Order: sequence, then C-alpha cells, then structure tokens
Amino acid sequence: MRPLFLISNDDGILAPGIRCLIEVLRPLGDLLVMAPETERSGMSTAFTLKEPLSCKLVSKEEGLVQYSSNGTPVDCIKLALNLLTDERKPDLIIAGINHGFNGSIAIHYSGTMGAVLEGCMAGFASIGFSIDDHKAEANFEPALPHIRNIVQAVLDKGLPYGVCLNVNIPNHGQIKGTKICRQGKGRWVEEFIPCSHPNNAKRYWLTGKFLNLEEEAEDNDLSAMRQGYISVVPSNIDVTNHSLISQLQAWNL
Amino acid sequence: MRPLFLISNDDGILAPGIRCLIEVLRPLGDLLVMAPETERSGMSTAFTLKEPLSCKLVSKEEGLVQYSSNGTPVDCIKLALNLLTDERKPDLIIAGINHGFNGSIAIHYSGTMGAVLEGCMAGFASIGFSIDDHKAEANFEPALPHIRNIVQAVLDKGLPYGVCLNVNIPNHGQIKGTKICRQGKGRWVEEFIPCSHPNNAKRYWLTGKFLNLEEEAEDNDLSAMRQGYISVVPSNIDVTNHSLISQLQAWNL
Repeated sequence: MRPLFLISNDDGILAPGIRCLIEVLRPLGDLLVMAPETERSGMSTAFTLKEPLSCKLVSKEEGLVQYSSNGTPVDCIKLALNLLTDERKPDLIIAGINHGFNGSIAIHYSGTMGAVLEGCMAGFASIGFSIDDHKAEANFEPALPHIRNIVQAVLDKGLPYGVCLNVNIPNHGQIKGTKICRQGKGRWVEEFIPCSHPNNAKRYWLTGKFLNLEEEAEDNDLSAMRQGYISVVPSNIDVTNHSLISQLQAWNL
Repeated sequence: MRPLFLISNDDGILAPGIRCLIEVLRPLGDLLVMAPETERSGMSTAFTLKEPLSCKLVSKEEGLVQYSSNGTPVDCIKLALNLLTDERKPDLIIAGINHGFNGSIAIHYSGTMGAVLEGCMAGFASIGFSIDDHKAEANFEPALPHIRNIVQAVLDKGLPYGVCLNVNIPNHGQIKGTKICRQGKGRWVEEFIPCSHPNNAKRYWLTGKFLNLEEEAEDNDLSAMRQGYISVVPSNIDVTNHSLISQLQAWNL
C-alpha cells in the first residue's frame, strides 16, 4: 500500500510552497492536505479554544484529498488526526514548504513548525520544510530532489518518538548538499513602527531583524544556510535541560 | 537599587493569578506589568504581524507600573522590552500565576510559557509559574512562600543563557516542597464537539484531556505534581536532539 502523508503549513492552503510540496510528494504516496484557509504565520504551537473550527473539503481526487480550516496549523493537524484519518493513519506528517527561514529560534515562532511539533507530540514521524525566501515566487526547484530524499529516508528509517526534523533550504541557485546540524543561537531585534489610531491611542506594528549570535560557528543551521547547504536539525519535544537539574538541586529550594 | 521584575501572563491582566503574583513580588522589587488585556490562553510563542499592537498605561504608582496590550503574551514581552524599559532593563521576567498546569508538553502550548520563552530568548532570566487549577478562585496561598524563594534564588544566582524555569504548583492544601525535575511525557487526546453554523457548514469546538504517558515514572513534573510537590523544570531554547545528529549523518542524505 502507498504511504499516506498528512500535509499542512502556515502560509495557507493556496501558498506556492504547499502547492510545490504537494507536487513533489505525489509520486511517493497518497496525500491528505489540511491547511489554514488563510495565512497564519507566526502562530507557533497556538491552538483555538474560543471559536469553533471549520473543516472544509476543498477538493478530492485519486491520491489527493484537500481540506482547509479557519484554525491554526496546530488545529489543522488535530482536526485531521481526529476527524479525517479514522480509517487510515498517516505514515508521515509534513509541513511547508514555508516561505521564510525557520531555523535557529524561529522554530519557536513558526506556525509551520507548530504543525510539525503537533504531529510529533501525537506520535507521528514529522518533518518541516522551509526556504530562506519570503517571496511568493521563491525558487523551490533546486531543493526538490533533496526533499524527496529526506522524505523517503524518514519513511524507510522512521524517527524516534518525540523527535521531529526541522529542514531549512538556502535561497541559492545551486544547493551543495545536506548538513545534519544543531540549532544556531540567535535572537530577533524588534522595531516597533508607530501608527495612528482614531481615538488618539497609539498603535505599533511589530517588525524585526534576525541577529545571528554565533557568526563564527560552523556547525549549526545558520552556517549551513550561509554555505549553501540544506540544514536538518533533529528537534526535541522534551526541552528539559538535563545537565542543569543537579545544579538547581544544590540550590535547596 | 531594588530589582525590576517584568510581569506578564496569558490569562489577562485582570486574572487572579497575576494579581496574586504582583502582591507576592511587591516586597522583593519594583514591578513593570505588561499583560494581555483579555485572555490569550493556548497562544504558545505566537506573535502578531497582521494588526497594530496597543500599549496602554493602566495604572502607575510607586514601585508598580501596569500596562496592557491587545497582543499575545510574546507581543507583551517584546513591547515592554522595546518601548517601556529604555532606562532600566528588568532583572527578571516572570509570568503567571497561570490558571492551569503547564508542565509536560503544555510548555509548547501555553501563552504564559510563551512569555517566559520570549524573555529567555531575549537574554533575560525568566520564570513561569502555573497552578494545577483552572478555577478563578484557585488557592494560591500555600505556594506563595515557595514562589518568593524561587524568585529570590534566581535573582541571587541567575540562570544560564537559553534556559528558563517552568514551575508548576500542585492543587493541594499542603505543599510538600519543591522538586527539580525533567519534563514528563504526555499528550492530549482531543475531542471535537460539533456545533451548528448558519449556512450548514459544520463547526467543531476543540476540547481534550491530557494523557500521562509515563504513569510509573517518579522523576518528572507529572509525578512531582501528583505527590504534592512544586515541580521546577529547567527548560531549553535550544531544542536540538544532539545524540541523534550522528545517527542521521549515517543516513547520507
């Protein structure tokens, strides 16, 4: 039997990135797409409690069934696993291709990686793909053979419970290969742009730039990206800092 | 000089949990409160790009200045660090007391822990406090001496860059003490409750129950809670699974 892939993203079901992902995966298996009906970038692992969620059939053909929802990427995964996969559970949960880099600490903010973490917490092998290019016309082409390879390898070999893959694709014409590496250290430097508001209450648009805190490092996802490699970071659901436990125990709280 | 605490939460600035946190911290330092104007539970590390953010002075007195925002808990921390702390940076960022348990994988969904992770990513020692009781009238009293101890210890000793504390308080009349421990393994089992919608498009309310996947374990935050102890989990921003890197390198992707 062909494998079943559950596909989502945070740029919305019409984004070129998810359209491209669907095309590249179709030869490898059957696809169930469940993605936000509009863009939900920056939604992290947020879910929706205060309004009812939609679950709308968008299209259905042999090997490709597509749904959209008003929910977050996490809601989409929860809806799909609970309402759409009773007869057949996915072999793999895949999100992307995200328009924008999701390496370093962006894993904590990304809705695309939120869907991946959700799939992982539910016990499924899960992968997120992102490209370091926010434009709708990003060139996914050079990455496609690598995406197929990574998906096939995870299908064949699986992933341990509680670990997902965060895959980031450089915005280069030629990709040099794939590097398995660690998450780089960085942070955002925000800039709030003031804007007017009818009753004199100032409002602010959140903008920001990413700051690499390890410019010299050669072994993380930021350096892989800079060198023209696809980065693959195995990422944990368990965020415990185990080495700090004994230090904190000595505090005698 | 007295230390400055930046305080936030996800239950909203009027929630009893943050009111209680403010009272317990006032003797220890000056407080800058910046919290969502309404409840933003389950918002994780989400931030707001599509609408302008408010930053509204709520009250100002000696040692206690309070602001609220229409943004997420992460937005609140970003706003405070960028617009409200030019003259004096916080010594500690503290979120809570959250109405509801945020141990195990709830760290990934919680808006309160989102604020803590944001503080940590910005380079500040950050702590989240949550109580295992969703009710507005939760009894915080038995936990207060422990909260003071933990805050004072972090003030005195600091935390390494990239590690924050996730503190969960059991809903017990008597608290036995504090356990430094690891994050327990669990997951949510969802139930979607169908509801009607005017134009015949079914909608669903997301509900769910937490499932402890390590009932027998004695060394995690779930067991500490069950035994009547406050759990303190040192939690990482770097989610890399370092031990898997070499295994994945052998895949020759």
